[in-house]
Amino acid sequence: MDERAALALLERELEAVGDDAAVVDDLVITTDMLHERTDFPPGTTRYTAGWRAVAASLSDVAAMGADATATVAAYAAPEFDREELLAFVRGASDVCERVDAEYVGGDLDGHEEFTVTTTAVGRTDDPVPRSGAQPGNLVCVTGTVGRSAAAIELFERGDDGRDGDADSRGESSGDSGRRRPAGDSESSGDTRTALERANELFRFEPRVAAGRTLAPHATAMMDSSDGLARSLHQLAEASDCGFSVESERLPIADALCDVADGEELLDLATTFGEEFELVVTLPEAALETVRTEIDVDLSVVGSVTPAEDGITLDGETLADRGYTHGN
Amino acid sequence: MDERAALALLERELEAVGDDAAVVDDLVITTDMLHERTDFPPGTTRYTAGWRAVAASLSDVAAMGADATATVAAYAAPEFDREELLAFVRGASDVCERVDAEYVGGDLDGHEEFTVTTTAVGRTDDPVPRSGAQPGNLVCVTGTVGRSAAAIELFERGDDGRDGDADSRGESSGDSGRRRPAGDSESSGDTRTALERANELFRFEPRVAAGRTLAPHATAMMDSSDGLARSLHQLAEASDCGFSVESERLPIADALCDVADGEELLDLATTFGEEFELVVTLPEAALETVRTEIDVDLSVVGSVTPAEDGITLDGETLADRGYTHGN
Repeated sequence: MDERAALALLERELEAVGDDAAVVDDLVITTDMLHERTDFPPGTTRYTAGWRAVAASLSDVAAMGADATATVAAYAAPEFDREELLAFVRGASDVCERVDAEYVGGDLDGHEEFTVTTTAVGRTDDPVPRSGAQPGNLVCVTGTVGRSAAAIELFERGDDGRDGDADSRGESSGDSGRRRPAGDSESSGDTRTALERANELFRFEPRVAAGRTLAPHATAMMDSSDGLARSLHQLAEASDCGFSVESERLPIADALCDVADGEELLDLATTFGEEFELVVTLPEAALETVRTEIDVDLSVVGSVTPAEDGITLDGETLADRGYTHGN
Repeated sequence: MDERAALALLERELEAVGDDAAVVDDLVITTDMLHERTDFPPGTTRYTAGWRAVAASLSDVAAMGADATATVAAYAAPEFDREELLAFVRGASDVCERVDAEYVGGDLDGHEEFTVTTTAVGRTDDPVPRSGAQPGNLVCVTGTVGRSAAAIELFERGDDGRDGDADSRGESSGDSGRRRPAGDSESSGDTRTALERANELFRFEPRVAAGRTLAPHATAMMDSSDGLARSLHQLAEASDCGFSVESERLPIADALCDVADGEELLDLATTFGEEFELVVTLPEAALETVRTEIDVDLSVVGSVTPAEDGITLDGETLADRGYTHGN
């Protein structure tokens, strides 16, 4: 049984499973386990790892349209290096500060592979489900698509400063995420190394504020952690609808355009996943209001269609492909 | 840097760390990572593992004197076996039901070692700290001490039905924890195998209701997950006090008396840890009221003394020894 089948089994077993986060009373709760081998390529600093791990859970809170309250992390490693641990905590704390949540520590554990489990808790009286998309609604995404695909390419190119280099893992200047807001300067051709750019791309902004702004208008919402194509398939299944998406409207990250083109570019942009934008449906009439209030670019990429029309990109079927690990 | 040193580092770094659970507004949050090799001996069923992992986090909620609201678990294993996964979920759900919390699923992840991270969230407007113990207070423990030490001994004796035996991991009769309440029949000499008894001992009751009853009266409280000796040292450090404990007043579990005696018995009972009773200080005047309201045995094991008197067992110094993993 693979992870998707196992998740489907759990959805049948547990009522609260099946959205980005579980809802209990006015709380939303979500947890994610990440491993060095699958989630943190060589060259990922511990500052970036702390940021990204916590941000992945915050993204699930955002996808419910909730406020983020607090996060915890269980940190397992073969040994506890002071600088690495502090860098991780600073990354985790810094991303929480961005979304007005509190990082409150967690557990430490000896383990042969660096492994992190993060949990985020948020609050909302009116969570946005995946199931309310209506034909005629617009389908939109926040920010850009393809940042993580670009980051992975840069990590592969730039795997040159990791071994024995404490800075590349402990990141002595732990505040670099603040000096240079992630996403603002992806392809500015400056003096940063490929690894530095990869780390910046990995430190994404959880869309908590955007989720709150979208919530009163959204008919369905989730994050794009499994990629845009899979997100659309999951929304379609929950809402019993189809989607018609146009490639020219996709807000493909400049950083991805720098490292890929043509068919590969479009394929990475739609299926790569491991990123954390919001995919949201809303009535066309709400678009103008939302755009004046939201703190991030919101791109209309297509529209909701009847279920029998399927899920299409430029009129052709968009397959349910993407990444199965993480959620 | 070992885990204790690393935790001390984090306590200095993060304000909210340093109690059984972190407190944010009226929420308490706690997370724990457990591994097959260190936390689930051969013979531990997946039903027991689900119960115990979630119960460990619920115990931290109990130690704050909070109501338990919800739990999640990230479940990592080399493969996802349907029966094992369902048994785990049933164990997790059953223990939540006991304490009126909701188990709401979590994450699944491929990993070479069976690893579980559980997070519990609870609520209280008045969390009980570790820092309020006053000389003259009584120090009490709920339930018994030594269950887990006895269980480990039984697991070692009874490691005979695990390999290739699906039932010993998936536990086809997943409700055995309900038919035979844990702790009621530890040494009744019935027909259960050592492994069955070990599993029952491992499925402890999180003291959430007891914690709620104790909270209005408690001056300090924590759970005994690192053993009684270490708990007393941690309370003493937080409260700037000492403790005088008498061995004859310790409520040693019958199951432990069955497998150990003499010095070893007392040593296991005070230092073994990996169990989850509440260690609480309260004014003597509150004892009678608490005892009429609490749903579990509460044993007075000694009293709070001035810090300069140190921590003693039968008048001799009780060393700060115990288990460092988990919290």
